[in-house]
Amino acid sequence: MAVNRLFIANRGEIALRIVRAAQGLNTETVVGISDADRGSAAAQLADRALVLGPGPAAKSYLDPRLVVHAAKAAGCDALHPGYGFLSERSILPRLCAEHGIAFVGPEPDMIDALGDKLQARAMAKAAGVPLVPGSEEIASAADARREGDRIGYPVLLKASAGGGGRGMVIANNADEVEAGFHKASAEAQAAFNDGRLFMERFVPQARHVEVQLMGDGTGKVVHFGERDCSVQRRYQKLVEEAPCTAMPDRVRKQLHDAAVALAASVQYRNAGTAEFLYDVAREEVYFIEVNARIQVEHPVSEMITGFDLVQEQIRIAGGSPLSVSQDDVRVTGHAIECRINAEDVGKGFIPVPGRITGWQVPTGEGVRLDSHMSQGAMIPPFYDSMIGKLIVHGTTRADAVAKLTEALDAFKVEGVPTTIDLHRRIVRHPDFIENRIHTRWLEQTLLASPE
Amino acid sequence: MAVNRLFIANRGEIALRIVRAAQGLNTETVVGISDADRGSAAAQLADRALVLGPGPAAKSYLDPRLVVHAAKAAGCDALHPGYGFLSERSILPRLCAEHGIAFVGPEPDMIDALGDKLQARAMAKAAGVPLVPGSEEIASAADARREGDRIGYPVLLKASAGGGGRGMVIANNADEVEAGFHKASAEAQAAFNDGRLFMERFVPQARHVEVQLMGDGTGKVVHFGERDCSVQRRYQKLVEEAPCTAMPDRVRKQLHDAAVALAASVQYRNAGTAEFLYDVAREEVYFIEVNARIQVEHPVSEMITGFDLVQEQIRIAGGSPLSVSQDDVRVTGHAIECRINAEDVGKGFIPVPGRITGWQVPTGEGVRLDSHMSQGAMIPPFYDSMIGKLIVHGTTRADAVAKLTEALDAFKVEGVPTTIDLHRRIVRHPDFIENRIHTRWLEQTLLASPE
Repeated sequence: MAVNRLFIANRGEIALRIVRAAQGLNTETVVGISDADRGSAAAQLADRALVLGPGPAAKSYLDPRLVVHAAKAAGCDALHPGYGFLSERSILPRLCAEHGIAFVGPEPDMIDALGDKLQARAMAKAAGVPLVPGSEEIASAADARREGDRIGYPVLLKASAGGGGRGMVIANNADEVEAGFHKASAEAQAAFNDGRLFMERFVPQARHVEVQLMGDGTGKVVHFGERDCSVQRRYQKLVEEAPCTAMPDRVRKQLHDAAVALAASVQYRNAGTAEFLYDVAREEVYFIEVNARIQVEHPVSEMITGFDLVQEQIRIAGGSPLSVSQDDVRVTGHAIECRINAEDVGKGFIPVPGRITGWQVPTGEGVRLDSHMSQGAMIPPFYDSMIGKLIVHGTTRADAVAKLTEALDAFKVEGVPTTIDLHRRIVRHPDFIENRIHTRWLEQTLLASPE
Repeated sequence: MAVNRLFIANRGEIALRIVRAAQGLNTETVVGISDADRGSAAAQLADRALVLGPGPAAKSYLDPRLVVHAAKAAGCDALHPGYGFLSERSILPRLCAEHGIAFVGPEPDMIDALGDKLQARAMAKAAGVPLVPGSEEIASAADARREGDRIGYPVLLKASAGGGGRGMVIANNADEVEAGFHKASAEAQAAFNDGRLFMERFVPQARHVEVQLMGDGTGKVVHFGERDCSVQRRYQKLVEEAPCTAMPDRVRKQLHDAAVALAASVQYRNAGTAEFLYDVAREEVYFIEVNARIQVEHPVSEMITGFDLVQEQIRIAGGSPLSVSQDDVRVTGHAIECRINAEDVGKGFIPVPGRITGWQVPTGEGVRLDSHMSQGAMIPPFYDSMIGKLIVHGTTRADAVAKLTEALDAFKVEGVPTTIDLHRRIVRHPDFIENRIHTRWLEQTLLASPE
């Protein structure tokens, strides 16, 4: 039942991560790459690399038929989508099923259901998971005003098909909510070809917390604790940590129970993350959505529990039951991850492709670097700008912050600008050290003031 | 009660490891260095570095008065001895006590008692810990023959004050044991200024297993599982792993219980390791000795449990009780460590000091590198040749071996010869992969045959 040959439909650090995880399971690996990634670390380490097409992702990584045909041609019996690209497009597992390839993720219908925020909220509600006070679908500007008045301002207008912050508008009063309806609807239509909106209470000082889940499709679900991903820029996470020390144990238990109840109620299969808003003042969590894939920030959960989540994904795709029970999962210490991007922070975080001419990395106890880069490596211009994830594990949050500070100082990249300096400023900021952050903290502090 | 300012009486990777651990506890660090280590990583990272004396260790790291006076002068309230150098010399904690400095280790009388193998065996016997069938002190060649006949050959003659393989002789029969007595006695006299010997049954195919212990001096002792350190050359460990998968759970429990009973019976304080011989054929463990310090191979125990043993050492030295109970310690996965030395394997493992001109290190999930080296760093000629420890953690032993194989392949050091290639051969050997090794395996296989 184990996976014999795994196709990796991704690139960058996650492709390398999946190749390594598979090798540890004695599973052969085939990575589907673009022409621009011929020299990539994943391509070099995998048993085989197949060129899917030219550099632009639309002609390689984003073409589901190309990907599945390549996997079939290479004789693969399973396919790992990584994150991003096609990972939450149900067409990919549908094509896999047509070709007898096990998909490392949930069933396509589950992906579709969770990808629609209204459906996901309905599933959560049915499982007794707390939702942020909000609306059903908003049909008109008048509808928006009526619902806004009922929920109480400020409110957030969101695209039903949305993600990544697109189609989101905050409205502080009745006038703003009418104007916001038109703006958000147009944005959602442009971004997702689906203008449907809904509305939620907006929590001005919220934390983003999420629960790492793993299910085997039988209704058995294990969680690997929560993560706090409140250091964000434009709804994109920059720093993630585990556990969330800003939360009382009582709320933590509610959070875990809610996430597990939701996943168990739908017999969730493989890795998923239930995302919540944490209202620090009210000490309440509200369900946001479920991401039906492995996430960028999964390493912090691995560091505090000792488990390899990607290997567990592959085992489950191979038909194995969960290898761990909830009682096997113990949280030890504290982990923090920084996403390191090749971006020019001073120029609006513009991505800067190019060649890495210097690459000195931090090492030592509790230090982990997930990166596909090395001295001389190229960053192609076609994809996202992340060049690595620096993760530390300490006995306490203070210990982890100390380790992270030193590790960031020891990390030297030459050839392209990076966000390492920004991270150095974040981890030295008193608000971060004392964990007084929220989802808009970064934009209101370090990114608001002139450097 | 916490340690405010810690003196580090060591160098190399362990000095750096201790500085980092202390920083995570918000403890100031002062490292005592030799003139040759002015540019070392520990000296650069510590809050302060004091030059103790010139390069040769006898004039710096090995002078206990110099070390303790420097610690006192720097206003330190605790001193960490690391491993090697003065770490098991009771004069160091005695001088610390005279100057009101907390020693990060056991009491001096305990160090003396455990350092004398006959006394240590008596303590083990009193605690009900199984000993290898052996003798009391051997007074003469005739005594050696009589005891050898009684125990059964082959036997091992060992120096009472010994360590590191010096003063050890194997005797396969009555004639050899008489000649061996004279040889071992002379060696012991020369090496330790103490010619006393004792004798033990020699187990031809034995594994070296050991239990990581931590006590707080009140009789409360926690173990962090066992390590298997059977890949050795001339009684020096090259590869260590945890747990020992070659042992049934029943024996593992006996081993843990025996180690904890011994340490608890003497109200052991701080970190220690109880070393045992494991007779694979008989499925029996025999006590060897207790090392009263942190050991080189402690990281594998950290990787499978998630705890920071060096921080725990510092906390206990500061007067804190153990921060963990036995039930908090769960073993997850498998870890393996390779000691990387700057040595010319083809020339009898001769140490080669010099400058590191190239340094590309492995990274990724489950990969840890404890090293004080970097591009351009110097290896002085005065000390041991270890330039780092590569540690991997995997879900299973097979997973760890796969990760280690890849990590060793990715590790590129230029400027000096290293033992990395030897480790690459070890981890690819069928005996290692299938875990059919013993303490003489390396010398009888890879090191016996021409390359």
